[in-house]
Amino acid sequence: MIDVSAIPMEEHVRFMRLALEEARAAELADEVPAGCVIVEPTGDGLSADARILGRGRNSVEAAHDPTAHAEMRAISEACRARGDFRLDGTILYVTKEPCAMCAGAIVLARIPLVVWGMSDPARGGQSVFGILDSEALINRSAVVDGVCGEECLEMMRGFFRARRRGG
Amino acid sequence: MIDVSAIPMEEHVRFMRLALEEARAAELADEVPAGCVIVEPTGDGLSADARILGRGRNSVEAAHDPTAHAEMRAISEACRARGDFRLDGTILYVTKEPCAMCAGAIVLARIPLVVWGMSDPARGGQSVFGILDSEALINRSAVVDGVCGEECLEMMRGFFRARRRGG
Repeated sequence: MIDVSAIPMEEHVRFMRLALEEARAAELADEVPAGCVIVEPTGDGLSADARILGRGRNSVEAAHDPTAHAEMRAISEACRARGDFRLDGTILYVTKEPCAMCAGAIVLARIPLVVWGMSDPARGGQSVFGILDSEALINRSAVVDGVCGEECLEMMRGFFRARRRGG
Repeated sequence: MIDVSAIPMEEHVRFMRLALEEARAAELADEVPAGCVIVEPTGDGLSADARILGRGRNSVEAAHDPTAHAEMRAISEACRARGDFRLDGTILYVTKEPCAMCAGAIVLARIPLVVWGMSDPARGGQSVFGILDSEALINRSAVVDGVCGEECLEMMRGFFRARRRGG
């Protein structure tokens, strides 16, 4: 198992850009732009042959399903890829801090590290409820925040600005 | 919209028994026994022609998916039945207090009333994190607890007792 806390920032940025691609695809489908990828580091870390186990984008409107958040989609896909409900040793990248539902799912999936772009101090699953490092739960996830933070925030702002204009 | 808080206990019991049937089916499949139904009261309340919008049972092991909790399955099914990601005016019955993930999903789905059998003071999404009535979130859910509580608790205890015996 690699030491996920020792991963250089530029490697996080590389995978956050893939999450941003997913978010952009959500936005083009008129969904709130949130995107996620789950990566399994191999060998020397993230650099060479890290495997992408799952991708997801927000699709609540199209799926008529409030659980169709980017993280949930990526977790289900990654578990199918592994044939296991446990995602030990993986890293989840998401453009926005997970909500309570997604934070709960991340802990259930035993994902040890979550990296996000923009925080959600008003409603985030960690910021408000402290779900990711709660002593009450059996597993805990470490957090790296602010990776491509400005880009993630700007995409979200742009989406809501356009909506207010009726665009 | 009917006043969900005015529903007599015997009507709650009727639907909790359906949730218990789902939990029993989960147990027979060697899954932690949790079951859920989502009901849409019509006309005079729950008695006559209440419509069951969704059912779900825990299937984490079979689906290799940590998000495959009873409540999540029932919410997705109910949303498909309605063609809407909003479940306003419905009641969710579940044998055990929802975890953080499921409590978050219930609030996202705007389900106004949650009825459960056994509470989970150590890890419950409401007991530990207060997700269902959090002022931070846009929607809130009222709770009725302890409906068929003994039956729900006994089913869960029996499951873990048999597992410890290797049964």
